[in-house]
Amino acid sequence: MPQPLELWYEFASTYSYLTVSRIEAVAAAAKVPLVWKPFLLGPIFEAQGWNDSPFNLYEAKGRYMWRDMERLCEGYGLAFQRPSAFPRNGLLAARVALVAHERGFGPGFSRAVYHANFAEDLDIGDTRVIAGLIESFEFEAGEILEAADHADTKARLRAQTDEAVAAGIFGAPTLRVGDEIFWGNDRLGDAIAWSALGGGR
Amino acid sequence: MPQPLELWYEFASTYSYLTVSRIEAVAAAAKVPLVWKPFLLGPIFEAQGWNDSPFNLYEAKGRYMWRDMERLCEGYGLAFQRPSAFPRNGLLAARVALVAHERGFGPGFSRAVYHANFAEDLDIGDTRVIAGLIESFEFEAGEILEAADHADTKARLRAQTDEAVAAGIFGAPTLRVGDEIFWGNDRLGDAIAWSALGGGR
Repeated sequence: MPQPLELWYEFASTYSYLTVSRIEAVAAAAKVPLVWKPFLLGPIFEAQGWNDSPFNLYEAKGRYMWRDMERLCEGYGLAFQRPSAFPRNGLLAARVALVAHERGFGPGFSRAVYHANFAEDLDIGDTRVIAGLIESFEFEAGEILEAADHADTKARLRAQTDEAVAAGIFGAPTLRVGDEIFWGNDRLGDAIAWSALGGGR
Repeated sequence: MPQPLELWYEFASTYSYLTVSRIEAVAAAAKVPLVWKPFLLGPIFEAQGWNDSPFNLYEAKGRYMWRDMERLCEGYGLAFQRPSAFPRNGLLAARVALVAHERGFGPGFSRAVYHANFAEDLDIGDTRVIAGLIESFEFEAGEILEAADHADTKARLRAQTDEAVAAGIFGAPTLRVGDEIFWGNDRLGDAIAWSALGGGR
């Protein structure tokens, strides 16, 4: 029996764009059930003493990442444009994603947010941008935004981020199967295999 | 025509153990010529403000790495034992590796150093350990150690580390094909493909 595969993702994260865009096809082919876990990396980075993305703090690492994204997106056939601002604030998008997952348009909405950020250079921290994305799925933006702004949703996102920390998650994307975590877009295949074999090789 | 694939590796690096152990078979199968580039990560980490391995500085990252090494070594069929000291000083081993590559036993010596460090828990900073490894290749340890301690060898290792910085290398293992770099054991396949296609997909 395949074990569920949790996808932990953060909307500011470049490599999460890659995984979110390709995971559904890969998981379906392996008959692996997928659980979507948006969370915030900011508080985790802050606890490590970082006040910015490591790709901004460490120049060589950042230079590499942008070139790598270009190459990988080309390989996966994904649109890519280096955003004019990085990292963008993913808080609003993460709250809306929690609501969208309940309403059944979470995966599509998540993909759309990444596309806006990394292919269209739109500010995903801007309520108007997020409202436009919600409406593209034929949901009423005002109502969804209100639900996203509700204290319960905020608390759920905080709890999910706390759960990430407790699970030992320190970056995004992270794939989790039971107690095993796999960090990075590169490890999607390993995580799928672990999951498909019911939690083991 | 395949382009040469440079393998930049550091003896203290856990993930370099994986790549050094499996790269020869993979490169040979793809008919990719391999260039061995031992270098030192210490000065690069210091320039980033790190006085220790990031796996020691960032606890969650370190916990993950040790579990990941266990899983990956099992998958590759590689012996693994978490060393009682980490990171071990790879300076002597790197100098000897430069000499060993000239004398034709560089790949074997490099694999043996990683095995000593990560499978046998031996101190690769200890001259007696390195002397034993040299002798296992039927070279005279005293003469090789003397060549490794020569000012020219020391200067070559410094130059190689400077070359790594200039190439934008910030971690190990790094694979390099022309101006393209691929960071991490996970990307060996991508680097091989880039190389086999003569520098491009």
